Amino acid sequence: MRKLFFDLAYTLLAAFLYAVTLPVLILFSFKKKYRHSLPARFFGVKNPPFAPHDIWFHVCSLGEAKAIAPLVERLGEKRLAISVITHTGHEAASKYAAQVRYLPFEPWLWFWIERPKTLVVLEAEFWYLLFRLANKRGARVIALNARISERSFPKYYKMRWFYRRLLAECDRIFCQSTEDMARFIALGARNVEVVGNIKLAQKIESTRSYPKPDGTLIVAGSTHEGEEEAILEAFAAYREHNPEAKLLVVPRHPERFGKVAELIVQRLPQMVLSRWSESRSVGADVTLVDAMGELNNLYAISDVAILGGAFKPIGGHNPLEPATFGCKIISGKEIFHQRELFKYVSHVQFVESEEIASALVRAEKLPPSQVEGSVDLGRIVEFLKTEKIT
Amino acid sequence: MRKLFFDLAYTLLAAFLYAVTLPVLILFSFKKKYRHSLPARFFGVKNPPFAPHDIWFHVCSLGEAKAIAPLVERLGEKRLAISVITHTGHEAASKYAAQVRYLPFEPWLWFWIERPKTLVVLEAEFWYLLFRLANKRGARVIALNARISERSFPKYYKMRWFYRRLLAECDRIFCQSTEDMARFIALGARNVEVVGNIKLAQKIESTRSYPKPDGTLIVAGSTHEGEEEAILEAFAAYREHNPEAKLLVVPRHPERFGKVAELIVQRLPQMVLSRWSESRSVGADVTLVDAMGELNNLYAISDVAILGGAFKPIGGHNPLEPATFGCKIISGKEIFHQRELFKYVSHVQFVESEEIASALVRAEKLPPSQVEGSVDLGRIVEFLKTEKIT
Repeated sequence: MRKLFFDLAYTLLAAFLYAVTLPVLILFSFKKKYRHSLPARFFGVKNPPFAPHDIWFHVCSLGEAKAIAPLVERLGEKRLAISVITHTGHEAASKYAAQVRYLPFEPWLWFWIERPKTLVVLEAEFWYLLFRLANKRGARVIALNARISERSFPKYYKMRWFYRRLLAECDRIFCQSTEDMARFIALGARNVEVVGNIKLAQKIESTRSYPKPDGTLIVAGSTHEGEEEAILEAFAAYREHNPEAKLLVVPRHPERFGKVAELIVQRLPQMVLSRWSESRSVGADVTLVDAMGELNNLYAISDVAILGGAFKPIGGHNPLEPATFGCKIISGKEIFHQRELFKYVSHVQFVESEEIASALVRAEKLPPSQVEGSVDLGRIVEFLKTEKIT
Repeated sequence: MRKLFFDLAYTLLAAFLYAVTLPVLILFSFKKKYRHSLPARFFGVKNPPFAPHDIWFHVCSLGEAKAIAPLVERLGEKRLAISVITHTGHEAASKYAAQVRYLPFEPWLWFWIERPKTLVVLEAEFWYLLFRLANKRGARVIALNARISERSFPKYYKMRWFYRRLLAECDRIFCQSTEDMARFIALGARNVEVVGNIKLAQKIESTRSYPKPDGTLIVAGSTHEGEEEAILEAFAAYREHNPEAKLLVVPRHPERFGKVAELIVQRLPQMVLSRWSESRSVGADVTLVDAMGELNNLYAISDVAILGGAFKPIGGHNPLEPATFGCKIISGKEIFHQRELFKYVSHVQFVESEEIASALVRAEKLPPSQVEGSVDLGRIVEFLKTEKIT
C-alpha cells in the first residue's frame, strides 16, 4: 500500500515534468537526431508494446546495444526484446533477431509493460518505474554490467532513500568491478555479484588470414584527418633505424582513401606505395588499405599498431582489437570515448604525434599489449537461461 | 550481555593464538628490529598504561606517526598520548610532546586501557578490543585517514559480520576518499565523512631563500647509488640542446658525497663543478649539494626536479615537496613506497633512466607539477577539540 502510494506520487511528478517540458519536446522532435526517438518515447508514435517474449534487454545507446551481442548470440533459442533510448541504439539493436522499441518515458510505462518474464537492464539505466512495474508484473529484474562511477556515488548516496527503493526492485545485480560492488551495497542493494565488464566478451576474430611478411610490420589503424602526416613522418624516421619495416595505413573513412594516397606520395616520395585493393599484399614500403573489414585481419599479422582517432580529439578506437592479436599498441592521448576499454589493455604507449617515432623504437623492447581482465559470461548466460522467477 | 559474550570469546581466541605463538615471539624478541616492540607489546616490558591524557592517537609505524604532525601541532594545548606498533613508529612519535607507548597485544588491553577520553585510530589500524574497550570505558573512538583498499574490500566484505561489530564501536570515520566511504558504508559503518588524506596537510616550506639563477635550473633530489650516472649522462645530452642549463645533485646519504663528487668529475670532465658547502651558490655547471636540509630551499628556485630513489628499486621519495614549489617533476617508475602520495601530484613524467634526457626536453613544454587534492584539516581539529563525548 505504501509502495503504491510512492509509485503514484512518483508518476505524478514525472507527468508534471512531462507537461512542463512538452513545448521543448515538440520542438526537439523536429531535429534530425531526435526525429524518431522523441516521438516514440514521449508520444507513443510507432512504438507499440512488445509481443510476448522471454528476455527483454533494456540498453541506452550504441555502446550498450553492441555490448550485448555475445549474449544475444548465446541466447539464440529465446524470444528476445530490446528497448533503447537513442536513435543509434535503435539502429544497432535492429541488427539482432529481436523486437526493438524505444523505451517510453516513465509514466507511459503503466500502459506499456505487458507480462514480461525477465528484464535485463544495462549499465546505469536506472528508471524507477521500469524496475518497479516490470517486477510488479512478474518479471525478475537483473542489472547487468552495472556500474556507479566514483564521481556519481556521492550524488547517489545523498539520494539513498530513493536508490534503496529502486535497487530493492532488482533481483540480481551483476556488476563490473569490486569498486562498483561496494558502491551498490553501500546504497542498500542485495544480491550483488562481480562478473566483470561484458564488453570484454565481444568477439574479435580475423575473417581471412594473410601471410606474415619479413621485417617489422606496422599498421596505422582507423586514422583520421590530420593524423596521417605525423604517422608518415614518424615512419620515415623509424626506417633509418629499421630499414626492413613496412607500414600499412588504414584510414577510418573510405571517402578519404584518395586523399591519403596523395599524402603518402607527397610525404614519402622515395618509398614504394601500393594500394591494398590492387595488390592484396603487404610487400610495398607503404600500403594504403583502401578496403573495409580488413582491420582485424591486418592486426593479426602486424607487430605494431598505431591506433588512430586519438592524436586529434576524436575519442579513440577499440583497443581490444589490436591487443587481442598481440600488437604492440601506440595510441594518442585523446581516448575519451574508449577510456573504459583502455583500462583493460596493458603496455600501451600513449604519446603525442611528435613522439610516435621514438615510441616505435621503444616498442621493440616492450612486450605486446594484451587484454587483462575478464568477464564470466557463462555465469550470466546460465543465470538468464535457467533460473526461475523468484 | 551478548556483546560481553562476544568480547570474551574474542579474547579467549586471541589468548589461545598468543599461547601458540609464544615460542616464536620469544625467539623474535632477540632480533634487533623487534628488540623493543615485541617485549613491550607481548610481555609488558617497559610499557605501562598512559597517565591521564585528553587525546590518544594510535598509529602503526613511521608513515602514520609522521602524518599526525600537523594535528599534534594544532592540538598543542591538549595532553597527548600516542601508541604505536613498530620501532620506527616509536622513534618518530617520540619527537612529539606526548606520552608514547607500544600498543599491547589485544587480550592485554583489558588491563591496560585506563579512562581514555578520545581515541583516534589512523588508517587501517582496526583492532576489535582496542575499539571496544576504549568505547566501553568512556572514549569516543574516531577513525582518521581511514581507508580500505580495492583489493582488501572483498576480504573485509566476506567478514562483514565481524567488521560490522568493529565499526559499530566507531563514533566517527573520517576517510580519505569517496571510494573508501562507499566501502565503509557497505561494511555497515555509520557516520562516515570524506575529509581527504591528512598526509596532504604536511608542512612543506623553505627555510632559507636563495636567488634564482639565469637559465634552466635542474635539481636531482635524493639520488641513490647507481642513479647519478644516468642523470649526469642525460644532463650532458640536454646541455647540447639548452647550453644555459645548470644541474644540482643532492644525494640522499651524506656518506656518498665524496663518491658522487668523483663521479661528476669523471663523467662530465668538461664542466665546472662546485660544492655547495664551499660556494653556497648555483653558479657552476654542476653543483654537488653536500649539505643536509637544503632540498626544499633548492626546489624553491628550480625549474625541473629529477626525483631520485625511483630509478632503482628504492621506492621513491616524497613528490609533494617538489610539486609544492612548482617544479616539473621527472621520476623513475619504482615509486612503490610513495604511490599513495604520487596519486595527488599531476603532470609527473615517469621514465626509465635512459629516457631522462628526452624527458628534460619534454619538460620545457609541460606545465609544472602540482598537488591536486586537499584535506579539510580544520574540520578534524575542530571535531577533536570541541565535540563532547557522546
